[in-house]
Amino acid sequence: MDRATVTQKIITAKVKQGLRWADIAQEVGQSKEWTTAALLGQMKLTAEQAAVAKRLFGLDDEETAWLQIVPYKGSLPTAVPTDPLIYRFYELVSVYGLTFKELISEEFGDGIMSAIDFSMDLTREPHANGDRVSIVMSGKFLPYKSY
Amino acid sequence: MDRATVTQKIITAKVKQGLRWADIAQEVGQSKEWTTAALLGQMKLTAEQAAVAKRLFGLDDEETAWLQIVPYKGSLPTAVPTDPLIYRFYELVSVYGLTFKELISEEFGDGIMSAIDFSMDLTREPHANGDRVSIVMSGKFLPYKSY
Amino acid sequence: MDRATVTQKIITAKVKQGLRWADIAQEVGQSKEWTTAALLGQMKLTAEQAAVAKRLFGLDDEETAWLQIVPYKGSLPTAVPTDPLIYRFYELVSVYGLTFKELISEEFGDGIMSAIDFSMDLTREPHANGDRVSIVMSGKFLPYKSY
Amino acid sequence: MDRATVTQKIITAKVKQGLRWADIAQEVGQSKEWTTAALLGQMKLTAEQAAVAKRLFGLDDEETAWLQIVPYKGSLPTAVPTDPLIYRFYELVSVYGLTFKELISEEFGDGIMSAIDFSMDLTREPHANGDRVSIVMSGKFLPYKSY
Amino acid sequence: MDRATVTQKIITAKVKQGLRWADIAQEVGQSKEWTTAALLGQMKLTAEQAAVAKRLFGLDDEETAWLQIVPYKGSLPTAVPTDPLIYRFYELVSVYGLTFKELISEEFGDGIMSAIDFSMDLTREPHANGDRVSIVMSGKFLPYKSY
Amino acid sequence: MDRATVTQKIITAKVKQGLRWADIAQEVGQSKEWTTAALLGQMKLTAEQAAVAKRLFGLDDEETAWLQIVPYKGSLPTAVPTDPLIYRFYELVSVYGLTFKELISEEFGDGIMSAIDFSMDLTREPHANGDRVSIVMSGKFLPYKSY
Amino acid sequence: MDRATVTQKIITAKVKQGLRWADIAQEVGQSKEWTTAALLGQMKLTAEQAAVAKRLFGLDDEETAWLQIVPYKGSLPTAVPTDPLIYRFYELVSVYGLTFKELISEEFGDGIMSAIDFSMDLTREPHANGDRVSIVMSGKFLPYKSY
Amino acid sequence: MDRATVTQKIITAKVKQGLRWADIAQEVGQSKEWTTAALLGQMKLTAEQAAVAKRLFGLDDEETAWLQIVPYKGSLPTAVPTDPLIYRFYELVSVYGLTFKELISEEFGDGIMSAIDFSMDLTREPHANGDRVSIVMSGKFLPYKSY
Amino acid sequence: MDRATVTQKIITAKVKQGLRWADIAQEVGQSKEWTTAALLGQMKLTAEQAAVAKRLFGLDDEETAWLQIVPYKGSLPTAVPTDPLIYRFYELVSVYGLTFKELISEEFGDGIMSAIDFSMDLTREPHANGDRVSIVMSGKFLPYKSY
Amino acid sequence: MDRATVTQKIITAKVKQGLRWADIAQEVGQSKEWTTAALLGQMKLTAEQAAVAKRLFGLDDEETAWLQIVPYKGSLPTAVPTDPLIYRFYELVSVYGLTFKELISEEFGDGIMSAIDFSMDLTREPHANGDRVSIVMSGKFLPYKSY
Repeated sequence: MDRATVTQKIITAKVKQGLRWADIAQEVGQSKEWTTAALLGQMKLTAEQAAVAKRLFGLDDEETAWLQIVPYKGSLPTAVPTDPLIYRFYELVSVYGLTFKELISEEFGDGIMSAIDFSMDLTREPHANGDRVSIVMSGKFLPYKSY
Repeated sequence: MDRATVTQKIITAKVKQGLRWADIAQEVGQSKEWTTAALLGQMKLTAEQAAVAKRLFGLDDEETAWLQIVPYKGSLPTAVPTDPLIYRFYELVSVYGLTFKELISEEFGDGIMSAIDFSMDLTREPHANGDRVSIVMSGKFLPYKSY
Repeated sequence: MDRATVTQKIITAKVKQGLRWADIAQEVGQSKEWTTAALLGQMKLTAEQAAVAKRLFGLDDEETAWLQIVPYKGSLPTAVPTDPLIYRFYELVSVYGLTFKELISEEFGDGIMSAIDFSMDLTREPHANGDRVSIVMSGKFLPYKSY
Repeated sequence: MDRATVTQKIITAKVKQGLRWADIAQEVGQSKEWTTAALLGQMKLTAEQAAVAKRLFGLDDEETAWLQIVPYKGSLPTAVPTDPLIYRFYELVSVYGLTFKELISEEFGDGIMSAIDFSMDLTREPHANGDRVSIVMSGKFLPYKSY
Repeated sequence: MDRATVTQKIITAKVKQGLRWADIAQEVGQSKEWTTAALLGQMKLTAEQAAVAKRLFGLDDEETAWLQIVPYKGSLPTAVPTDPLIYRFYELVSVYGLTFKELISEEFGDGIMSAIDFSMDLTREPHANGDRVSIVMSGKFLPYKSY
Repeated sequence: MDRATVTQKIITAKVKQGLRWADIAQEVGQSKEWTTAALLGQMKLTAEQAAVAKRLFGLDDEETAWLQIVPYKGSLPTAVPTDPLIYRFYELVSVYGLTFKELISEEFGDGIMSAIDFSMDLTREPHANGDRVSIVMSGKFLPYKSY
Repeated sequence: MDRATVTQKIITAKVKQGLRWADIAQEVGQSKEWTTAALLGQMKLTAEQAAVAKRLFGLDDEETAWLQIVPYKGSLPTAVPTDPLIYRFYELVSVYGLTFKELISEEFGDGIMSAIDFSMDLTREPHANGDRVSIVMSGKFLPYKSY
Repeated sequence: MDRATVTQKIITAKVKQGLRWADIAQEVGQSKEWTTAALLGQMKLTAEQAAVAKRLFGLDDEETAWLQIVPYKGSLPTAVPTDPLIYRFYELVSVYGLTFKELISEEFGDGIMSAIDFSMDLTREPHANGDRVSIVMSGKFLPYKSY
Repeated sequence: MDRATVTQKIITAKVKQGLRWADIAQEVGQSKEWTTAALLGQMKLTAEQAAVAKRLFGLDDEETAWLQIVPYKGSLPTAVPTDPLIYRFYELVSVYGLTFKELISEEFGDGIMSAIDFSMDLTREPHANGDRVSIVMSGKFLPYKSY
Repeated sequence: MDRATVTQKIITAKVKQGLRWADIAQEVGQSKEWTTAALLGQMKLTAEQAAVAKRLFGLDDEETAWLQIVPYKGSLPTAVPTDPLIYRFYELVSVYGLTFKELISEEFGDGIMSAIDFSMDLTREPHANGDRVSIVMSGKFLPYKSY
């Protein structure tokens, strides 16, 4: 048994019961973004969060224990994603990568936007020409320092 | 001569003159996000926008013509970026890729967030524990339809 | 269980029963192009479409539920396909890729042909020197805009 | 000197003179699809076609000779294309690859659609919700035979 | 179940019974080259050919049905083969690839040797310094045409 | 200077003078297959053969010396070739690779067909349905022995 | 001109003058670890630090300006390094990667060791059986938080 | 059965029992760094060490035998690690790789730091701005010699 | 069942019984180098050799039959090996590859050292500063010939 | 200028003057194996050795300085070599890799054969059936130790 087995079981249970991530997140008591990532095997849950998952998805004790272990992260099967929805994000990195770098460097200097001290909010933005996906990302700036 | 040569010349001129993207964007009359991407060789400029670039960076007529041609896009030298700042965005795709997919699918159904009908705003978010990079992305949702 | 398992079951049932995609599509009530892609695990089915699949292929309730979930897309095992029929399409992208780009750019400006708002029709074109495969693709043009 | 050098020179001349592929094709006396591919270094030109190119782009005798040599084909710098417009075609192969195979196999049996005995027509299809790119491909079916 | 499962079963049966491809081909009524490729999962068999395979290898009805389906082709686990015997053929492509191209182009013009309308004969060529493998390949030349 | 520079010079001279490989081979006194491979930088020439090349292509003394050095072999820019003509040979290895192995193993036992002690003859085979490319390969069988 | 050109010029100057990184660092006023990384093109220098480099390596004004720009980082030509000294560090990541993860997770919980808020000290450790390389790394722990 | 099966069993047992690597190492009588690597399948254990593992994780005799066999090393599923914690170490090699090489070469001459005659100590370093991960690596310098 | 299954069974039996390759080779009646390679699935055994393996490892008749079939060779899971011991040999190819080529070419002319008509002897070489691994390789030189 | 430039100049000079590595090694005062590797850019030369190279190949002072710098090692352009002679060594690693590991592990325990404290001797071994290449490798065994 490993974390991937537990993830697979959670997804199957979710499909069978027709649950929604937004409702699951409500129960877990965290944002839907973090909750989805966590239950897809990318984050460690606390004992309380794991207990909710246990109840919702019918996990046994060992499976619940796995949710409280730091997982080996990375959710995609290939380095360049094949799924069109996910590829569009990869494309943004490819097309706008140097733009991200230039603008953050100009504003902050040499460093990075943290992908750890990071949060995200994904919402529907109604629009006359067709609704839009709106994503707000917020990550701490971490400067390189000389030593 | 190709677009990459013009991009290289623009960057060199920018370094030599100590210009800032935010100021260049002001002159071009577009957001700093779009302007930076365009001048890094990812977008086609209009005749007016190209004329501004010509003046700012001392381009000749042929170089100015290249800015008005649709470029071959993709700004990074490797499929997995080596630069730590840009890698963090790739990491977000790797760690949160399935989360993006699950949440957009749950909210909108089968489809993608357009990376073409798309805009972006990158700002500094002051914070007591260290300032944060805030990025707001907005892309039209495009549904798969049966036919 | 995941979508791939359901796809595998559908293909096996199709082989055992000797069904044809064109007939299956008739029952599903969509084009044979969309229906085939959907049943090969690339599209989400509606409840009605899934019910047809359930009946045709002898699926159980959970398998039928999976058909109504947005799948992780990408139907090929390698980045460069090894199957000669599919490789020929990859070859068209390799040989004619820049031609596609030049002609669409010339006609429409900077943008893409959507692979989402897209439909396709594949037919046999009788010909004295041997019949031909005729494929008509139609995708919405999506322009890049400055902002 | 090699064919790539000649291609580069042709593109630069085309940008400088502001020519259009459709007009160039008219002069060459072939479709715009074939002409563009040929001048981008993917096809061998006849002496007459090369003479037109010589006149239009100001080539010298050796450059004109190169156009009449069979070129090493393949127009893209990476196996998975980074340019969004070209990537969409790669995505079609990835998402619809098995669909192409299933439908052609069902209609014709074991074999391929030729990418050599092949022609293509790319046009603008006006549409109320935004114009569409229409591509008609026609390739001879070539069956595998036992021997 | 898929074609690979059937192939695996055929190979196992062949090993267990100590059969030879040459004899199997006799029964199937085709060349040993085509028969071997077909039973290794690369070709579609007719009903009659599949019936022979059924009898020889003890296949059941579903397995026999799979042999009559067009398979996803490609017989090797890696893009560059690791097996020394097969690698030597890859090496021929690497070392002589441009030579093939130059000589076929010189003799026939721009086009390819078909790998579909193709046959092959592999025999032992006795020789004083050690016997030789002799392979005769014959593929139709397919010219690129302008349109 | 290296061998690739000399190869490039030879090809350019051949294009400019409109020479044919078959005629060049006549002068060199070897088969057209070997001669083409050698002049494309894959083989070492003798002093006499190099002298012929010197005369035909207008090489200087140092360039002629390079032809008599054992070259670093491999004529293709990518592991999977993009050129359609050359790809067809790679496809033969992919589709028929295990067939080559099975038939050679059955006839000869464990070993390989040498790609070194090897010769090849490529000719045009007239045919009512379109001429064919005929390739005869002959390589010594080399057995693995226990020790 | 780009940063790589400046790096190349610095290395050439260092070789010609026979300088040592330890002495250069003294002049720059930073550790030898940071200084070496910076002058190899991995860090942004301040105006003062750049002025020292200008003097030491005979750079002109534009080259000095480049040192004060945030560089595109990544110092190696391949994803898996070929140089044996550098490969040993890659091997440590391969062999001890999960060990790093397990021990940091056990001590700190889910998060990472920063490679940005990071310093390093490399010294010679005398030893009877042969001197040892001692490397002390110190990076801030950054926890993943739920939100 | 192979070593990976035993590793998987050890990890599962560790999760179920809630053990810590530091405590396990105490029992094994080695450092926590070596013990973790060994039990993750990267090192050979002695009979005594294996006996401890047998008792702690409830292994059978054959599983215990596997721990005393030299394993095939390498703990990561991809050449470039996807897990953010482990990636940071890969990033250090990418950004500081040439720096490691320059400083070790300057201090010791041509050679490597051994990754075999090597030890490592990983500790928590308390710090006002957030605790730090401290890693001390010590590897024997091995010089290249001429012969 | 395939050869890999048999190899796996042999290794497991060897671990369980605590056998040594040197002793196994004695029984098989061949060198320990060849015997180990053969039992690891890289060589075809004779009926007699297979009978010894059957007895030593408790194989059944079908497993014994597989040992007498020519196997698909290649013993490593990745193109660049991750195991440090095996990587060192890959490193020798990387660092000394051109040296091998230069020295063999100088001594023998254009050709290769056969990896088929090849034998190897691996022994312990006692040495005051630590014992050494001594490997003697002997392979027939095979010249390229013109034809 | 970098080491590769110096290597290229040395090879060109060697070809022009018709020198042999064995004779060059005599002058340098080291084995032909080490000397060839060193002059191909894989090793650092002493001042005396570099002075010999300076004289033999007509290097200037800066080029001679580069020979005394530790080079970035790795002599091959691709991870899997395309040159047949060098590929055979890669094939030995692929086919015999696990055999090397098993036999060294059995004789010495867990550790590696050093590729640094290593020497090599390559000679011609006369043989009735064709001369053989004989290579003797000797590398120190380095054991993994627990700590």
